[in-house]
Amino acid sequence: MRGVAIIGCAMTKFGRSDLSLMELMGESSLGALRDADLGDRPVDAVYVANMGAARLNKQTAIASALVDRLNLFPAMAEAVENGPASGASAFKNGFQAVASEMADIVLVTGGERMREVNNLEVTDFVASLSHPEAEYIYGVTLPALAGMFARLYMDRYGVTAEHLAMVAIKNQENALKNPYAHIQQEITMEGILHAPEAVVNNPLIADPLRLYDCCPVSDGAASLVLCPLEMAQQMGKQIVKVTGLGQATDTHAVHERPDPTQLTAVRLAAQKAFAMAGLTPKEIDLAELHDAFTILEIAQSEEAGFFKKGEGHLALEKGITSLSGELPINPSGGLKARGHPVGATGVAQLVELVWQLRGEAGKRQVEGAKNAFACNFGGFGNNVVATVLKRED
Amino acid sequence: MRGVAIIGCAMTKFGRSDLSLMELMGESSLGALRDADLGDRPVDAVYVANMGAARLNKQTAIASALVDRLNLFPAMAEAVENGPASGASAFKNGFQAVASEMADIVLVTGGERMREVNNLEVTDFVASLSHPEAEYIYGVTLPALAGMFARLYMDRYGVTAEHLAMVAIKNQENALKNPYAHIQQEITMEGILHAPEAVVNNPLIADPLRLYDCCPVSDGAASLVLCPLEMAQQMGKQIVKVTGLGQATDTHAVHERPDPTQLTAVRLAAQKAFAMAGLTPKEIDLAELHDAFTILEIAQSEEAGFFKKGEGHLALEKGITSLSGELPINPSGGLKARGHPVGATGVAQLVELVWQLRGEAGKRQVEGAKNAFACNFGGFGNNVVATVLKRED
Repeated sequence: MRGVAIIGCAMTKFGRSDLSLMELMGESSLGALRDADLGDRPVDAVYVANMGAARLNKQTAIASALVDRLNLFPAMAEAVENGPASGASAFKNGFQAVASEMADIVLVTGGERMREVNNLEVTDFVASLSHPEAEYIYGVTLPALAGMFARLYMDRYGVTAEHLAMVAIKNQENALKNPYAHIQQEITMEGILHAPEAVVNNPLIADPLRLYDCCPVSDGAASLVLCPLEMAQQMGKQIVKVTGLGQATDTHAVHERPDPTQLTAVRLAAQKAFAMAGLTPKEIDLAELHDAFTILEIAQSEEAGFFKKGEGHLALEKGITSLSGELPINPSGGLKARGHPVGATGVAQLVELVWQLRGEAGKRQVEGAKNAFACNFGGFGNNVVATVLKRED
Repeated sequence: MRGVAIIGCAMTKFGRSDLSLMELMGESSLGALRDADLGDRPVDAVYVANMGAARLNKQTAIASALVDRLNLFPAMAEAVENGPASGASAFKNGFQAVASEMADIVLVTGGERMREVNNLEVTDFVASLSHPEAEYIYGVTLPALAGMFARLYMDRYGVTAEHLAMVAIKNQENALKNPYAHIQQEITMEGILHAPEAVVNNPLIADPLRLYDCCPVSDGAASLVLCPLEMAQQMGKQIVKVTGLGQATDTHAVHERPDPTQLTAVRLAAQKAFAMAGLTPKEIDLAELHDAFTILEIAQSEEAGFFKKGEGHLALEKGITSLSGELPINPSGGLKARGHPVGATGVAQLVELVWQLRGEAGKRQVEGAKNAFACNFGGFGNNVVATVLKRED
């Protein structure tokens, strides 16, 4: 398998946008292509990560549409959908296109325009990834699944509402240093949990999860440009190499898992990615985890192998996962604060890793970062993609 | 790049079905896995081709759902969308997964359950692949685009209504020999064009295209199992090798093409596939073309390189493309008669090629077939995938 490098990346600001899905994806794609500085080298393939265009935006064949918008004819193109892990799945397929020698230069763009429809419709749309006969039909939503998961986690491992709030506070603090983040607001434990007005400002969404435990509904897009490692070296680029890629699936319905607090697909995907990279979790300098709900950051930090099961909240408490800690988690602000335009998220996680590895992350820079990890979490943990990137000096 | 073989295939009967999308895809997947006879070898990756589940069936993350249904944990999985070429796009990505050595055994399943919604909604859904600002907004539908294309073709190349009807008659005749085909009805030139009742039985849909010039709206699924060529040889399989794969894009809006009768993406995709296979069109023994409308079979037979531009209808007239001709086109019945469950079609085309190359096509068998070609046509020719398969003796 030939080596693959990332030589370009960009993203739009996440948040509420007046731009169409195609305008958002066009903006991030052009940014990444500019960053890659390809000269007259053609783009051979385009991968689009998206979950909802057919339903939310009434548009299909969006990969062909993006090629048209960017005038990249006759590049190959298709869209990849894997629920909230669509971004990393599209990236994996772009990686395989280069690794298999079917393509040299590949553009991967994830985008979602979710605010086209109202909040009820968005919640129903996202719930369409749950099991149609065993979950969806009974009115399950993603916040509901996450709420039940959080309750089990609290009961079993001693996680408290304060631990959950610590994730929100940390990630919103990081996001203040990220101009692309959706949420730009400083919060405090007092303000969201203990002050009299907290019950109004931070209401229960799905007990025990409160508003500030949940990621926002965002519009946005993010893009990466991949090429063979050797070509990147010839171009004299600062190279970020894709060293590990692992993916695993788990039962569709959460209640069918022997122990619902175990995120088996995260564990297996991470193990595969680390094995491919020839690294252990200890050698990772920073991680972007899929904190669609605060509890998920804690759980994934354990399943990915950074902390023992049931001890992720203790590491959080000690500041290990803070920007200045030993293993900064979600320096970008994560889904919680960077925002979560579903198809864009997995790509945006990797954009953050690339910026960090290239030393371009500004005020949130993790100094000397060499190996970085991302976990993109599809379904409620039923399809997970883990990626390891490395700075090549 | 390591060689890739197809070692299993199956499809459901196409047509009206009471089965859910997941039941349809489960049926064809199990059929293909049975056909592959993997023993205790695990499936490493699952690719699902689908265009409309998010909108038509209100279900997303269907690749994870299929893994769950088939108990293939922890196989990697994602869905691929490329409009009506979703099937071949998913196949291409499955091919790349094996070729890149990221996976050994890959299941590719295409499926669509279109009859969940009414005909108006289906037509609007399919039109969502057209250009949102330059076509869709003005009420364009796929039959309308095909009608304008057919009119230009008739004016320029002397194609007549009788030529179009010949495609329909040939393909419906072939379908009578295919138990999986949606349309099982013998038709005659007299009956659909010249008899007094023809105007009622075969009404205009989009002038000059009549009802029998258009493919039906179908439910169905089709599946393939891929593995490294070497593994297939070790398993003692009758091997069908993937020798050529080409893909190309063209302008999203049809009217932006310098000559709208030129299907540039078909030409480029076929050229790439033939170059990869080291073959010329003359060496192909049979072809499955994307005859969503009769005129498209004629046009694609020229652009793929089988006949000169403007002469496809003459070859048809001479019987060259009949089942007993020199180059049988659409022995399965094509989209026109096998049916067109959008996401399944590109996979079903390849299933037909495999059956033909293995000598398992029953009454429609093309004797001694060694090299076979398929063209899966996305959008209105804006994203085309061409595939060449070969029987390895």
